[in-house]
Amino acid sequence: MNAPSLPPTALSNDLLSQMREILGERLSTAPAVREQHGRDESYHLPAPPDAVAFARSTEEVAALVKLCAAHDVPVIPFGTGTSLEGHIAAVKGGLCIDVSQMDAILEVRPEDMDVTVQAGVTRKRLNDFLRDTGLFFPIDPGADASIGGMAATRASGTNAVRYGTMRENVLGLTVVLADGRIIRTARRARKSAAGYDLTRLFVGSEGTLGIITEVTLKLHGIPEAITAATCPFPSLEDAVNTVIATIQAGIPVARIELLDEVTVGAVNRYSKLDYPEQPTLFFEFHGTAQGVEEQAVMAQSIAEDFGGTAFSWASKAEDRSRMWQARHDALYASLALRPGSKGMSTDVCVPISRLAQCILETREDLKDVPVPAAIVGHVGDGNFHVALMVDPENKAEIEAVKAFSHRLTQRAIAMDGTCTGEHGIGLGKMEYLREELGEAVDVMRAVKAALDPKGILNPGKVIEG
Amino acid sequence: MNAPSLPPTALSNDLLSQMREILGERLSTAPAVREQHGRDESYHLPAPPDAVAFARSTEEVAALVKLCAAHDVPVIPFGTGTSLEGHIAAVKGGLCIDVSQMDAILEVRPEDMDVTVQAGVTRKRLNDFLRDTGLFFPIDPGADASIGGMAATRASGTNAVRYGTMRENVLGLTVVLADGRIIRTARRARKSAAGYDLTRLFVGSEGTLGIITEVTLKLHGIPEAITAATCPFPSLEDAVNTVIATIQAGIPVARIELLDEVTVGAVNRYSKLDYPEQPTLFFEFHGTAQGVEEQAVMAQSIAEDFGGTAFSWASKAEDRSRMWQARHDALYASLALRPGSKGMSTDVCVPISRLAQCILETREDLKDVPVPAAIVGHVGDGNFHVALMVDPENKAEIEAVKAFSHRLTQRAIAMDGTCTGEHGIGLGKMEYLREELGEAVDVMRAVKAALDPKGILNPGKVIEG
Repeated sequence: MNAPSLPPTALSNDLLSQMREILGERLSTAPAVREQHGRDESYHLPAPPDAVAFARSTEEVAALVKLCAAHDVPVIPFGTGTSLEGHIAAVKGGLCIDVSQMDAILEVRPEDMDVTVQAGVTRKRLNDFLRDTGLFFPIDPGADASIGGMAATRASGTNAVRYGTMRENVLGLTVVLADGRIIRTARRARKSAAGYDLTRLFVGSEGTLGIITEVTLKLHGIPEAITAATCPFPSLEDAVNTVIATIQAGIPVARIELLDEVTVGAVNRYSKLDYPEQPTLFFEFHGTAQGVEEQAVMAQSIAEDFGGTAFSWASKAEDRSRMWQARHDALYASLALRPGSKGMSTDVCVPISRLAQCILETREDLKDVPVPAAIVGHVGDGNFHVALMVDPENKAEIEAVKAFSHRLTQRAIAMDGTCTGEHGIGLGKMEYLREELGEAVDVMRAVKAALDPKGILNPGKVIEG
Repeated sequence: MNAPSLPPTALSNDLLSQMREILGERLSTAPAVREQHGRDESYHLPAPPDAVAFARSTEEVAALVKLCAAHDVPVIPFGTGTSLEGHIAAVKGGLCIDVSQMDAILEVRPEDMDVTVQAGVTRKRLNDFLRDTGLFFPIDPGADASIGGMAATRASGTNAVRYGTMRENVLGLTVVLADGRIIRTARRARKSAAGYDLTRLFVGSEGTLGIITEVTLKLHGIPEAITAATCPFPSLEDAVNTVIATIQAGIPVARIELLDEVTVGAVNRYSKLDYPEQPTLFFEFHGTAQGVEEQAVMAQSIAEDFGGTAFSWASKAEDRSRMWQARHDALYASLALRPGSKGMSTDVCVPISRLAQCILETREDLKDVPVPAAIVGHVGDGNFHVALMVDPENKAEIEAVKAFSHRLTQRAIAMDGTCTGEHGIGLGKMEYLREELGEAVDVMRAVKAALDPKGILNPGKVIEG
């Protein structure tokens, strides 16, 4: 359990013992625990916290934050550590508050189609729990992330084109503020014009404005009928143009995902499948039996216009499951293209009218990048990722990949798009935030200073300074 | 044009002449103009501003705000004056910035299904303009409000159950801050995880955090098929239970509106119609021809379970138009029940499971209120209004109505609902905001102080102090 490279905790014994009064054995300064909590799934360098607190209640979080505020100690909330922009790196040390033991599903209200959970509940566990209610929680970022972390990063994923992102699906939050006060941002009405939209202010604030401890979510009825299909296309351009036409036709697809030929090849090898190694769209349709049929016929007819004639349907649940598992494993599959590599994933989102141009220019740009690269995307929203398989020891590669990512981000912003569709700003995108939003970033900074005047909440993230 | 009760402008001649340098003839201190700009459609006492500026561009607004900031002069933005909680009353005097001449539709992008407008464009004008594109803007609060005002109050209305409110339909804003800086809150990507959600922070901030000068909106495809129907019910309870069951069944109704028997009677007389004078639901279904048919069959079957057997269908556009015009005229129709009266409209919203109880208790409570009252509601969201027809000269009536409104608001909050579903806080609901959200209001105040340290933006609204 020893990690010689890690300096001992910088927290005083006095402070640690005050924390132990709150948590007992649930406070750890063990190097392995600290190391594990300073690292997410991104390429960013890990930065371990000085201690890790395994909180079990909002009140415990509030008590810990009060102590940290009194001693100017940074506080970093931690869910499952699956973030992708270094969100949980303790770049200024401090206390990591791990909410994974806050895993109670507090109340399901089927008649209101909502649920209140503690922040540490993961999305898969929530959906397992909901199974018998006929309801489900659609937001699906791939990783089995915690609901608190998903709210904090404004997560979305494959279903967002139909069901929205965390922005649209959080009804209210319980938040611990920077001084330990506890607030509830909204009651449970489906809509409200009561004051500033604090719910949306905290959703996507990445732990920098408060610590989310409970989340009330909208739920959706499990559709009467679901059908899914894959369809290969002659070219990337044909696939993307099919997406654009499908969205513009107003077909309410539940999922419409793009995998380029590199990704399809990787997925075939990794998941032992045999999709044609061409740019491919993965579709899913939700609705009544009749409605799904209607959507599928419309989408198929659009795809045919762009040479997508070989639809392969998956109507049985297990076939769909295998198909979407393959999609979710795309990053791991791509990493296996180059054993020992680490994945760096870009994440831009552009207006749908610019999507084809953005992806094609990016594909062209990739020709000069000296590492394997795979394009996947939640293309119905205009959102796509390039996964680049980097040798983490090779500085030249890392520089080339960073330069590529820089060009891609600027390309997206120039198209009136965003530097991040769903991963968030974290450590990695701060410079682009200003490029994208200019002086609006000063408004963000003013809000940050107002809500966290000491700057103890997840410092060094989202906004500079 | 003389209004003897109005004191002369409190603004110095020097300041006025600096404003005239910006606006020329488009600055007015005429009593009639000031009177007209201090009054919305609510029961709140009017409070005229000291001057009215008819701005034509974001830059003009910014220049005016800079002047006001330098002289600590309050600034109140004004769209169409159709707000319902005294939002535009100049309770501390100051400059009203009327944006009605900022009426340019700047860019329609059919392929992205979005549009950018100046704040003074009204929703009807926008939809007239869009007609040939096959797209429409669904948010419909009844009044032909300005898009800027609708964004500022987080407006919603009859279509919100299907299309969401302004919260879900604003993609980005141009905002003039309290010191005259101009920001753009977001680019045009459909989703973004880039920093704090400033768009949602300004939507619903009622002119207290910044002045919205341009709005980029999501548009929606005009449905292939639309059909509408009215259906009377034996009792209010049956009508409300039909709504609840319809929502819980996941039928994607575009509109589902409740009119109680008083409202139906008023509407019949006002609009020369002959609906049965019973509690009645107004439905509208949007989709493909097949989809609409399917929804209608399902809704009809649910209604039958609650005694709603007499569906009256309106498939032709002119029939639907007449029906919805009657719905929108419900307030005027109710006022005609008592000539010379003024309407006071409540506006609570509760979780759908509590809707029947909330409406029935409210109906019971109304028995002791000595003025005519009509219940209408966007019940699919759990949102309903009671319009009370008050003699504005009768203090006892006004007290009784205020006491009723107080009880209603507390009833809704106790049911985990909100004190305002769509009208906003304005002057009228400040005390309830704290009751509803507790210490969260202090967070709002901190945000307000950070963004408007001098407190010049629409002072006296939303939050105390």
